[in-house]
Amino acid sequence: MSKAEYRIPKSPAGLKTFNKIVNTGKKLFAKNGFQATSINDIIAKSKIAAGTFYIHFDSKLALYLYILDLYKVSIRKASALATKGLTTRYDIERAGIKAFIMYAKKDSLAYRIIWESMFVDFDIFRHYYESFAEAYIKHLSDYVENKDLRSDINLETLAYVLMGISNFVGLQIIFKSDITDEQIDDIIDQAMMILDKGIFNIRH
Amino acid sequence: MSKAEYRIPKSPAGLKTFNKIVNTGKKLFAKNGFQATSINDIIAKSKIAAGTFYIHFDSKLALYLYILDLYKVSIRKASALATKGLTTRYDIERAGIKAFIMYAKKDSLAYRIIWESMFVDFDIFRHYYESFAEAYIKHLSDYVENKDLRSDINLETLAYVLMGISNFVGLQIIFKSDITDEQIDDIIDQAMMILDKGIFNIRH
Repeated sequence: MSKAEYRIPKSPAGLKTFNKIVNTGKKLFAKNGFQATSINDIIAKSKIAAGTFYIHFDSKLALYLYILDLYKVSIRKASALATKGLTTRYDIERAGIKAFIMYAKKDSLAYRIIWESMFVDFDIFRHYYESFAEAYIKHLSDYVENKDLRSDINLETLAYVLMGISNFVGLQIIFKSDITDEQIDDIIDQAMMILDKGIFNIRH
Repeated sequence: MSKAEYRIPKSPAGLKTFNKIVNTGKKLFAKNGFQATSINDIIAKSKIAAGTFYIHFDSKLALYLYILDLYKVSIRKASALATKGLTTRYDIERAGIKAFIMYAKKDSLAYRIIWESMFVDFDIFRHYYESFAEAYIKHLSDYVENKDLRSDINLETLAYVLMGISNFVGLQIIFKSDITDEQIDDIIDQAMMILDKGIFNIRH
C-alpha cells in the first residue's frame, strides 16, 4: 500500500489534466477491470504525455484508490444531503436507501468500481465496507438512544443488513431499464415495509 | 453469446483434463478477473496442449459461463440440502441464508466469480440475479399461500432484500477471519430477528 500517493494540482490547467486522468481511469477500470488496465492505456486514452501521469499519481493503484475514495465521499454526501432535516430513523433510512440507489442508477460505474476492489486487493474491499459499516453503526446508535430503533438488535449486523438491502434493491431497480420514479418509490416503500413490519404473519 | 459451448468428456482421463481446466479457470478468473486472463494463461497453468482447451470449450467465455453455472447450481443444491425437511418459512429462510454464507465462507472464490460477471457482460450479471430472484419468488409464493409470509409484500422486492441480506451478512462474516460457528449462528439469528420483528420500536 506504499507508493500510492496522489497530488492534486493547484492550477486550472493542472486540475483539468488531473480530472481527465481520473475520468479515463473510472471508465477503463469499470469496463475492463483493474488488472486488465495498464497505465499506458490510461495515458493513451487521456491523451497526455507519459510523464504527466506520474506527476499526479504514484501508480495505477494510487489512481484506483483515489477514484474509490471519490465514490465513498460522494455517496456519503448524497446520503447526507438527502437526509438533511429529517428527524425519524424511518424517514432517514428511507431517504438514505433512495439516495444510494439513485446515485448508483445515475452513475452506472459505481457498482463496478466498488466491487472491483475485491480484485485489486481484498483488504481494500474489506476496508471499504468495514468503514462504511462503522459510520452506519455510529448513526444508528443515536436512534437506539432516542428509542426510534429497537435496542435488542446488534448494530453491526443491522448495518450489513441495510447495506445489503440498498445494494440489492439497487440492482433490482437498475436491472429495469425503463422504470419510472413512481415505481422506484413503490419498491423502496416495500423494502421499508419489510424493515418496519417484518416478513412473517406471526412473530417468532 | 454464440460460440460459448462446452463439451463434457465421457472418459475418466478426459474428465480429469476438463476439471483441471475448470479449476485453473476458477482460480485465474477469481485472481485477475476475466479480461486479464487469457486462454494461453489457462492452457499454461493447466499444463495441457494448446488444442486440448478447444476440445472442451469454444472460448474463454464458454469456460467462464460453465464455471458461473457450476456456482449457481451448487449454491442452490447447498440451499436445497440445508432446507430439506423444514416446513416453516422462518426455518427455511434461516437455513437457506446460513447455507449460502457457509458456502461462500468455504469457497472464497464464489463472490469473485459471480460479481466478475458484471465485467464479462452486464447481461450475464443481470441474468444471474434475475433467474435467482425468479426461483426465490416461486418458493416464497408457496409460503404466502400457506400464510407463513405476509400477503402484502411484493415478492420480487422481498427476493432482492433476502439476497442482499445473504450477500452482505455473508461479507460481514467472511471479513472476520477467526469467527466461531457459534458467532456465525448469533449473527444469522440477529438477521432473522430483523426479518421477524422489524427494526423500529413503533410500527409505522
